[in-house]
This record gives sequence, structure tokens and C-alpha cells, in this order.
Amino acid sequence: MKRRQRFTDEVVTMAHGAGGMASAALFEAVFAPALSNPLLDTREDGAVVDLPPGQLVVTTDSFVVRPRRFPGGSLGNLAVHGSINDLAAMGAVPIALTAAFVLEEGLAISELRLIVNDLAEAATAAGVPVVAGDTKVVESGAADGLYITTTGIGVIPVHRPALGAGFVRVGDAVLVSGTIGDHGIAVLLARGDLALEADVVSDTAAVHGLAAALLDAVPTTRWLRDPTRGGLASALNELVELCGLAIEIDESSLPVLAAVAGASELLGLDPLYIANEGKLVAIVGAEHAQQALTAWRNHPLGARSAIIGRVTADPAGMVIGRTGFGGTRVIDLLVGDPLPRIC
Amino acid sequence: MKRRQRFTDEVVTMAHGAGGMASAALFEAVFAPALSNPLLDTREDGAVVDLPPGQLVVTTDSFVVRPRRFPGGSLGNLAVHGSINDLAAMGAVPIALTAAFVLEEGLAISELRLIVNDLAEAATAAGVPVVAGDTKVVESGAADGLYITTTGIGVIPVHRPALGAGFVRVGDAVLVSGTIGDHGIAVLLARGDLALEADVVSDTAAVHGLAAALLDAVPTTRWLRDPTRGGLASALNELVELCGLAIEIDESSLPVLAAVAGASELLGLDPLYIANEGKLVAIVGAEHAQQALTAWRNHPLGARSAIIGRVTADPAGMVIGRTGFGGTRVIDLLVGDPLPRIC
Repeated sequence: MKRRQRFTDEVVTMAHGAGGMASAALFEAVFAPALSNPLLDTREDGAVVDLPPGQLVVTTDSFVVRPRRFPGGSLGNLAVHGSINDLAAMGAVPIALTAAFVLEEGLAISELRLIVNDLAEAATAAGVPVVAGDTKVVESGAADGLYITTTGIGVIPVHRPALGAGFVRVGDAVLVSGTIGDHGIAVLLARGDLALEADVVSDTAAVHGLAAALLDAVPTTRWLRDPTRGGLASALNELVELCGLAIEIDESSLPVLAAVAGASELLGLDPLYIANEGKLVAIVGAEHAQQALTAWRNHPLGARSAIIGRVTADPAGMVIGRTGFGGTRVIDLLVGDPLPRIC
Repeated sequence: MKRRQRFTDEVVTMAHGAGGMASAALFEAVFAPALSNPLLDTREDGAVVDLPPGQLVVTTDSFVVRPRRFPGGSLGNLAVHGSINDLAAMGAVPIALTAAFVLEEGLAISELRLIVNDLAEAATAAGVPVVAGDTKVVESGAADGLYITTTGIGVIPVHRPALGAGFVRVGDAVLVSGTIGDHGIAVLLARGDLALEADVVSDTAAVHGLAAALLDAVPTTRWLRDPTRGGLASALNELVELCGLAIEIDESSLPVLAAVAGASELLGLDPLYIANEGKLVAIVGAEHAQQALTAWRNHPLGARSAIIGRVTADPAGMVIGRTGFGGTRVIDLLVGDPLPRIC
């Protein structure tokens, strides 16, 4: 039978990406123990996935966050939460994930193991198996350590009403499931190149439970989104662009942690534009706003949820912030963003 | 309504990855025109995909080929063919693709456009829409231009018998759908750092039609694989490891283009280990070998297909090459591979 070597490699080498014995050894030593499940264990190039009845939803994201570890999470669990949350925002129950790794030659195997283990733990905690994957290796200098691309496979249950910008009506309420800007500020501070210390932890978390709690409580929920890159402001701008209505936010009702507010102010940032990785923003009929709020407040991830505004007819296509003193401002889509590689 | 700028950017900037207006502008200018389809056009974070009856199959791969353009193809169409071919090898009909891009700051937009257009053309030619995607941008020096990760979604039709290593029996025939090593040699020569010129074109192509032709002609086909990274030798080694049998290859029956054979010899490479991107290797019952061969030879991608060997009981777990003069050699799994970043 085959010769098998003990895996003693300390860093990723080009051979690990070649599809031969070294690739197999890396898979068996690092990926298989962490991610083991019946589908991945077949060692096929793909996975046959059993689906419950309903409509299939597919979503994909690459994750390039820097640094790879930050208070509250890492590239590994972020890559899981990100794709699960996109499914959740579509009203889908997450069923399976794929994970593709681009590794830089020279990356410490110990570091890779930590990230893979974080990814595996997050997938297990969320109850969503990683059913297929891939690893490629590029030369030293051709990547920054490692990048992970996950694809989420989910199903919208048969009797769940559809969500979408087209269902949004004037008068509807806008809710957010908790404090905004935590992830972006946590990652920014973790880079350590700012003369600023604050105790901010990323909110990275899988929000499919939070989505289900809302959709169970308010089946007529109009629209749902996880406000990641670009923050709450970008998510709401995308919505008004699609539905042709306007949104008015009461800025004083926005849940923002004091440490996030303080760091944002010092850095000249607006928490409305800062990435979240464990939050949802929802639009529901005004008559269901309290029910929605109660459903979220009763969920462990929704304790700080709040009703933050309403849908209006004018000014069509715009998000307006109502400030504490009765003034208003336009909350526009930013051209750029001061926080690259936040996810 | 929104202000909209004309897209005049000449290179990728960090702002294009920030999720704000620049990200949207890049999507609208480069991705949307090429990839437009009803699902992608919703601009949602994911896509709702209608599936025909059958079992869902999911597969994912990152593509990091260097150079990005080579005779016969590019990173763009390779990323489409790679995931379609993994689905085809599982016996699945490809239904949809996702595509996630990691872009390096400074990449020329004109270059990105070419790659995205190649990707779109390949998807259209194969009849498989790109239904969801993502772009991230990393700093100059943190990637080599761009990397693409695709995920393939396919369905195994209801009445198609299962494929798998477990169905392989002693006496079965081994077939390959055409010449081996074309892709790897084409890419290697395209790097231009070898003092060697030869007219070799990558075989990159979507082989789902080829797979369907075989499975229609021989529904009892045991096992199918697309022998990419690591070549035919690695694919067959994975098979014998899984099924516990052996495979004997008649080396004189292997279809190899003269230019590929010549370049391989000069470079000290063995075409058996060189990547293919438009080939299939199949195991069928010996009594169906001619039918299988005919089905492939009648397909445009299978003109050079051949019966190349057989499954034997011993030496269990090994692939044996029978050379022209009655000698044999072990065709083992390589530890490394002389061709990094071939796909």
C-alpha cells in the first residue's frame, strides 16, 4: 500500500498546492481533522447535498481581513459568518458551505491551523457543514498570508413569504438588531497603527437565528440585510435605490457603543458607514414594529436592537438622518471608505 | 435621485473594494455588462436558483494561474471550466456558478475587463449563468493581479445511476477523452522563462457535454474525473486509494501531442502528471468500453479519446504503467509538482 509520511511541515510550500502527495498530506493534517463531516470525508471534488423543500439560495464572498485575528474573531470565523449572514438576509436557512483557500508560500502551518480551526468551530456552532473546498498556493509575496472564499447554500422554506425591496411601503419601520460599527472599529484598532486604544470587540456572529426569530414573529417582513462593508448607510442606500422610496433615520435612536462612538469621533469616522458582521437591518410594516423589536430583544444577539426610522416617499432614492436638534442631513453612499480589508 | 459618475477609472483602487459608490460603479461598468442575467441583475447579496429535480452537487475552486492569459485561454474561462468540469465529473448537470474576485490595487481595468469578459463568454457558451459574485481589493503587493474563486452548482438527474470509486470492479476499462498534458505545457511555455518554443494550446473547455454523452451511452459508467492539477496520474492514484484496487495503464496507448511529448521530454516532465483542463478520465465495464469510446469520439471534444488501461486486483492501491517493451513501472503520487500555479 501507499507510503504515508507524518506531516511535519512548518510552513506552506508550493508543493502543498500542486495536487500531489503534499497537497493530500496538508489536507489530511490540517483541514480534515477540523472539518470532518460525511460529505467532505468522501474526498470527492464536490459534494452531493440533501436539500429540504424550498427554493435554493446561493451566495459567495471572499475574505481578506487584515489583521487575520482581532478581538472577537478571525478570518476563519468571519468567512463562515459572512456567507451564513448573506443567506439569512435572503430569508434562507443555511444548509452548507464551501471554502476555498489561497495560501501564501511561507505561511506558518500553526497559523493556518488556527484559522481553519476557527472556521470549523464557527461552522459547527452554526450547524452548517463545510461540504467542499480547495487550496491553492501562490509564491511568497503573491498573497498576504491567506484569503478564504466561502459560498453559502441555503433554502428558503416553502411557506415563507418572499423578501425584497419591492415589498417596502411608505410608513414601514426600520429596525437594526444591535449596536453598529463594532466590527470595523475592532479590526481597525487591532491593526495597531493608530495611537488609540479602546476596548472594542468585533460583533462577528452568525445571524440566521436572529433572522428566523424575526421572520417567525413577523412573516410579512419586507426586507432584510446584513450591513457589512460600507455599514448601515450603504445597506439602506442600496435599498432606497432599488425601491425608489426614501428612508428617514432618527440618529439619536441608533445603538452605538460608547467606545465605538468615541473611537469613531477621534478617527473622523461615522459609525453608520462602519462594517458590522453580526447585525441585521429590517424593514417591517409599522404595525409590526413592536413585535419585531420584541422578537429580536428576546434573542441573545438582539438585546440592543432598536427601531431607528421609517420609510417615506420623499426625497425618493435618499437616506436622510434626523439629528438631535431637529436638523436633517443626507446620508449618501460614500465613494470610497476609510477602512479597506475590513472583511 | 442619485448622482452617477461616468466610470473613467483606469486601475483598480482600494475604494473599489470598500462597498460604497466606487464598488457599485466598478460592478456596473465591468461586471454587470458582461455577466448580465436575471438573477445577477437583482443586485441582491445572493441568488434564488430554480433547480430541476435531482440531487444538488456543489464544488468550489480558486484559480491563480500564471500568466493570466495563455494560448487557448485565460484565468477567466479557466475559472468557469474548472468548476463546470468538477460538476460534470460528479455526473451533475451544471446549473449555476458564483464568482468571487480578489483584485490587487493597481490592476489595469482594461485587463480586468478582458478576464471578466472571458469568464462571461465561457459561462454563456456553457449555458451556465453566474448568479452571484463578490469583489474584494487588497493593497498593491498583496495579490498577483487577481484571483478568482468559482463555485459550481449542479444537479444529478433523478434517474442517473450513481458514480463513485466504490462501483469500480476488476476488469473494468480505463478511458481518457483526449490528449494529456496540453494545458500544463501551454501555461508553462506561456511564462516565457524557458528557452523553449512549441505550438501548444491549452485544452481548457467545459466537458459537461462530454460527460453527458458518456453517461447517456453507458449509464453504468463507474467513475469519472477531470484530471487537472497533478494530471492523469494523480486522478488515478486517488481512485485506487479509494477503491483498494489497482490500475494498469498501457503507456503506448496514451494520447499525447507530439509537441507536448517533446516539450515534456526537454523539461524532464511526464505528461501523466501534467494538468489538463478539458479532459475526462472514465472507468466503465469492459463490455461497454467500445460504446464509451464511440460516444466520446463522436463528440467534438473527444476525437482523440482512447482506451488506455484496465482495473486489476493487484498491486492493490497502485497505478502501474506498462511500457512499450513489456516492462512496468509504478506511477506514484508525486510529493510536489514542477508546475505551480497551473490553474
